[in-house]
Amino acid sequence: MKRMLLILTMTLSVLMVGAQQKKQLTLEDVISGGKNFRKFIPENKYMGFLGDTDMVFQNEGDSLYVIGENNSKDLLLSLTEVNEALKGEDLKALKSLYRITFIGETSFWVNNGESIIVYGIQDKKVAYYISYPKGAKDIDYNIEANAIAYIYNKDLYIATPDSEPVLVEKAGAEHIVLGQSVHRNEFGIHNGMFWSPKGKSLAFYRMDESMVTDYPLVDITARVAELENIKYPMAGMKSHHVTVGVYDINKKELKYLKTGEPKEKYLTNVSWSPDEKYILIAELNRGQNHMRLNQYDTQSGILIKELFEEKSTRWVEPENPALFIPGKGNQFIWQSERDGFNHLYWYDIEKGLVKQLTKGDWVVTKVHGFDAKNKSLFFESTKDGAMDRHLYKVQLSSGRISKITNAEGYHTVNISNSGNRVIDNYSSLNVPRVIQVIDVRKRKENLLFTAANPFEGMEVGKVTLNTLKAADGKTDLKSRIILPPNFDPNKKYPVVVYVYGGPHAQLVRNSWLGSARLWQLYMAQQGYIAYTMDNRGTPYRGCEFEKIIHRRLGEIEAADQYEGIKYLQSLPYVDADRIGVHGWSFGGFMTINLMEKYPETFKVGVSGGPVTDWKYYEIMYGERYMDTPEENPEGYKRSNVNERVDQLKGRLLVIHGAIDPVVVWQHSMDFIEQTIKKRKQVDYFVYPRHEHNVLGPDRVHLMEKVTLYFTDFL
Amino acid sequence: MKRMLLILTMTLSVLMVGAQQKKQLTLEDVISGGKNFRKFIPENKYMGFLGDTDMVFQNEGDSLYVIGENNSKDLLLSLTEVNEALKGEDLKALKSLYRITFIGETSFWVNNGESIIVYGIQDKKVAYYISYPKGAKDIDYNIEANAIAYIYNKDLYIATPDSEPVLVEKAGAEHIVLGQSVHRNEFGIHNGMFWSPKGKSLAFYRMDESMVTDYPLVDITARVAELENIKYPMAGMKSHHVTVGVYDINKKELKYLKTGEPKEKYLTNVSWSPDEKYILIAELNRGQNHMRLNQYDTQSGILIKELFEEKSTRWVEPENPALFIPGKGNQFIWQSERDGFNHLYWYDIEKGLVKQLTKGDWVVTKVHGFDAKNKSLFFESTKDGAMDRHLYKVQLSSGRISKITNAEGYHTVNISNSGNRVIDNYSSLNVPRVIQVIDVRKRKENLLFTAANPFEGMEVGKVTLNTLKAADGKTDLKSRIILPPNFDPNKKYPVVVYVYGGPHAQLVRNSWLGSARLWQLYMAQQGYIAYTMDNRGTPYRGCEFEKIIHRRLGEIEAADQYEGIKYLQSLPYVDADRIGVHGWSFGGFMTINLMEKYPETFKVGVSGGPVTDWKYYEIMYGERYMDTPEENPEGYKRSNVNERVDQLKGRLLVIHGAIDPVVVWQHSMDFIEQTIKKRKQVDYFVYPRHEHNVLGPDRVHLMEKVTLYFTDFL
Repeated sequence: MKRMLLILTMTLSVLMVGAQQKKQLTLEDVISGGKNFRKFIPENKYMGFLGDTDMVFQNEGDSLYVIGENNSKDLLLSLTEVNEALKGEDLKALKSLYRITFIGETSFWVNNGESIIVYGIQDKKVAYYISYPKGAKDIDYNIEANAIAYIYNKDLYIATPDSEPVLVEKAGAEHIVLGQSVHRNEFGIHNGMFWSPKGKSLAFYRMDESMVTDYPLVDITARVAELENIKYPMAGMKSHHVTVGVYDINKKELKYLKTGEPKEKYLTNVSWSPDEKYILIAELNRGQNHMRLNQYDTQSGILIKELFEEKSTRWVEPENPALFIPGKGNQFIWQSERDGFNHLYWYDIEKGLVKQLTKGDWVVTKVHGFDAKNKSLFFESTKDGAMDRHLYKVQLSSGRISKITNAEGYHTVNISNSGNRVIDNYSSLNVPRVIQVIDVRKRKENLLFTAANPFEGMEVGKVTLNTLKAADGKTDLKSRIILPPNFDPNKKYPVVVYVYGGPHAQLVRNSWLGSARLWQLYMAQQGYIAYTMDNRGTPYRGCEFEKIIHRRLGEIEAADQYEGIKYLQSLPYVDADRIGVHGWSFGGFMTINLMEKYPETFKVGVSGGPVTDWKYYEIMYGERYMDTPEENPEGYKRSNVNERVDQLKGRLLVIHGAIDPVVVWQHSMDFIEQTIKKRKQVDYFVYPRHEHNVLGPDRVHLMEKVTLYFTDFL
Repeated sequence: MKRMLLILTMTLSVLMVGAQQKKQLTLEDVISGGKNFRKFIPENKYMGFLGDTDMVFQNEGDSLYVIGENNSKDLLLSLTEVNEALKGEDLKALKSLYRITFIGETSFWVNNGESIIVYGIQDKKVAYYISYPKGAKDIDYNIEANAIAYIYNKDLYIATPDSEPVLVEKAGAEHIVLGQSVHRNEFGIHNGMFWSPKGKSLAFYRMDESMVTDYPLVDITARVAELENIKYPMAGMKSHHVTVGVYDINKKELKYLKTGEPKEKYLTNVSWSPDEKYILIAELNRGQNHMRLNQYDTQSGILIKELFEEKSTRWVEPENPALFIPGKGNQFIWQSERDGFNHLYWYDIEKGLVKQLTKGDWVVTKVHGFDAKNKSLFFESTKDGAMDRHLYKVQLSSGRISKITNAEGYHTVNISNSGNRVIDNYSSLNVPRVIQVIDVRKRKENLLFTAANPFEGMEVGKVTLNTLKAADGKTDLKSRIILPPNFDPNKKYPVVVYVYGGPHAQLVRNSWLGSARLWQLYMAQQGYIAYTMDNRGTPYRGCEFEKIIHRRLGEIEAADQYEGIKYLQSLPYVDADRIGVHGWSFGGFMTINLMEKYPETFKVGVSGGPVTDWKYYEIMYGERYMDTPEENPEGYKRSNVNERVDQLKGRLLVIHGAIDPVVVWQHSMDFIEQTIKKRKQVDYFVYPRHEHNVLGPDRVHLMEKVTLYFTDFL
């Protein structure tokens, strides 16, 4: 009956859109992939700096303006004129200007899907272009080389405007992967080709997966269901072998760095020295507790020396390549958690550590680059609180840190080449979005744009950010509570927890709505208190906070989440018997984990794409936290939700994408199998053609399913 | 809340077992695989005739008795004595005597899992034995040959007590299958080896599946999920090629019958002539509308002639091999539906049709064999109504039919070699089981056993069998209604329909409880009216009734079922708004079909292992009814429930075994995919390690799930 009402409400509210200001959100409004989702994201402007200048541009897709003093807008470029020039050269038209990259202030390059095109802004002409074959991928254009590298039929090519493409390396077998991200995108790896600074050479990854087990995925949309094997290295099993090739364009010579034995290791954070003589690789052992920063000679491929090593009793996780300081020869900045927090270290290849640049009970979250004179380095950090992000610069010589951004909240920045101006795009709990230009020297802010509140005039719940104590009784945890609109403290409200709880994701932030998913606002409108908390193990709080989960995933995390629930249950307006929980991936794992550990507390759960047994998860992520099943059998057993299904009491729905290549289907299928053996009635749903996330319009179906499950049973 | 009560009830009733006579059934009582299931099946006795004699034995597993006049019991044989003799020969002991087969009255043969053993009853000794290798399968012992044929590592062997096994034929490739049932067990095929009457030769099937598509099944219980391909020929696609080999034991010579082109045809109902000179094969074209009964010479393999052909505008479905009349040379009995009902025809290989033996608006359901003088033939039929089964005999010369069994109901019989005595095991709506011996000549019945009502003292619902008109307004259909115990005609009861509706299955019969599943009795106890009806398309009613579904599966069947529902809704004690439906396989197809076609009628449905799109089903069964997708695109479209998901309104749960090799998973996965695309919320569940049916203890989990779905939502 409740369900009928809900559907009716949804239908009615859809009908009301446009007729008058609507008061109620629909799933089409709040779910990415929904028809109106974009309407409810604070408006954004696409701005940047014009090449090396301090001039700000605003890109509107069909035209690009220079923003002058007093925020005047001068048209610099139109899509029409660009496409006319492209048409003259028989080049495929651009759909928008969004993907252009300035080369200086007078030209830009862009990929039109067939060619890399360099366009002169002044003379409105195509300067030149480099085409690549249909089906080529990972097109990587380098301005210095004026060349592209790309993968075609698994082989690696380099092409220039003037000559035939050169075959750099042949894959030669199905299980060889060239020039692509390796190690399953862990350790900050997101690409597989590395142009040298002067564009004379290209380094690239080569991955041999022949020894990695196949995991069978099935395409049910074929006439007869077809097998689609993927290579999936499971915890404790054999891992792929990666090497790094270096191709010298002039010599037309390919060498592999002699990274040697053991072959099972992680070659991460490849970086070139400015003189192109060296490549630094952060080499991590398979056990992930011992990193060596190794210096290789790019001509001979020989290991020159280990610059330094980092060890940990838990894990070492290098995620940022060495950042060489322009004009300073072989000096670079290194990010390390060695003192318990992610900080900046100044190194010299010859002399070793120059000094630690930043220090304190906070973490550097992003490094941008240097100012014009290479005297200061810009970085973002949690120095003013882990919920906020601010831009800072540190003077290399003195170590003096100055804060660039002012307003409280979560800042995303774009810094001009000179380091004199910053485009600051920020939001905070109650501020949807502000864009301003900061004059770094004058410390002056010039407002460019203020986004309207997309919920203006609607009844949405009140979002608050809160602090509570972890299960250890001392650590502060951050949570977000969204109360239903027209909240009445004399009523009792059910709670729906949205949980993630795993490494690398901070859900509670001082950004617009506290970074709540709009679905949580929707649930608040449906009469639920929507709750989220970042337990220990989540990032940006330092090693002790983050790494306490080592070898026992799910234990500390669940205990902390339970503290949040106990707090909620203590509130007079919370219906303590009606607590629901939903999460995906690690959050799916946490959902089942919580339902099993606190069966009297959680009445309803919806778990999506869950890890259920860490031995089915991949080596790189899994072994970092859990070691191998052989090294940590007890930990694997205790974290295995398939072992505890007999503790289930509440109503649980498990959902999985049938072709999930990340958390493979086996996880939830094994879980279901165990529930059957233990005679537990769990609900299940499958998205036959979705991977690890249900994206696109089907996501609305997913979240309707999740929502209805709470409506039906909570 | 309802659910909580249900679980409580179940728990309580389990606790009450043993303490006092319980009143309520539990799922463990009513589901095969449940702990107490056997308790609620009327007790049975395993009886037969001693070899060629008219003496009745009763096999109790650990001992075997001869039943004398006045039902005296004389011990003939004990498991202990047999196993002692086996031990003396170092042969593995038998677990019971149930699987012994008499050879005459003085010895029997039995398979102990390692050997075929012939045991002499009088001297209590093993006469001889033939061992076969571990892993051998399809062991086929022939008394005349005193030899076994078996398959080992895909190859076909014959072994005798005295010599080394002989390799008859090598498979030679993974896609070659020897000596096993072919054509997916359609056309009455259930084995692949055929000993000649005198045991001098062995005929066998050879199937080449190289041209058949692989269907990928995945074993999630492996460390890393593993692929298990099966060969699955889908409608309209390439089919396997079958041939028949004939091996002459003395000559040690193998020949294949020259069955010729096209290779895509069905070689069914292989039978040997008594003189071993000929083999008859009912050869059916792929279109299944043209059968030729062909006579092959077993020495040369050459086709001698076509004896006769049968054609149909719908389909021809030979399911019974020629039955040669002992002592009459080359004369045989043939079963055919050619006059619209399955009847018996007397043929002579040389002269053709001698005469039609049976005729009328009823069907022969089973042919047993001849009396001692080969003057009469015993058969079962629906002559006295399609709900009953009786034994008859027809005199070959006169065609006179006499009825052997008397009591109304469903008779299963065992006829002595002489034809003078019949063991009659029957039940009817209110009779759990009676076993008697009928003296055929004296027409005298001697009662051997009467089973107690397993529900004695319990409150179970009243079962009635009823007749209603089909959607054509004239055809009689049979249905079964079970009312809740303590039925009150002034109340309103919800209905749960159990549906199958497909060919080859009759659910409503005049046997114990009307052949209701015990789960239906359970549902009646839970307060539902349990209903089942056999629509047109189901068997034993003649061709017009059965074949009207041709090229349009689901259409007539659903219309007929709807007539039943309209009738129920007209009853004052039926809650017309609360109609649920459940079915599996064809019944799963029907469930979705009904939910889509009558969305206002069916509030809740649970569909298991459903065919959703007949193009995913296999060639043999599928094309018989639907022709190929190319020949009948409109019919395939109209029968495709994936095309009509937008009509869904009620609450639907779909369940599938993940390694179902019959109705492959693709059916329900495609359905789910379409519901997602159409934004319909359907529920789904998977049994990861089950095939087309969920069997064993897990079946209780399944039926609890089905039950709870109705409890939750109906």
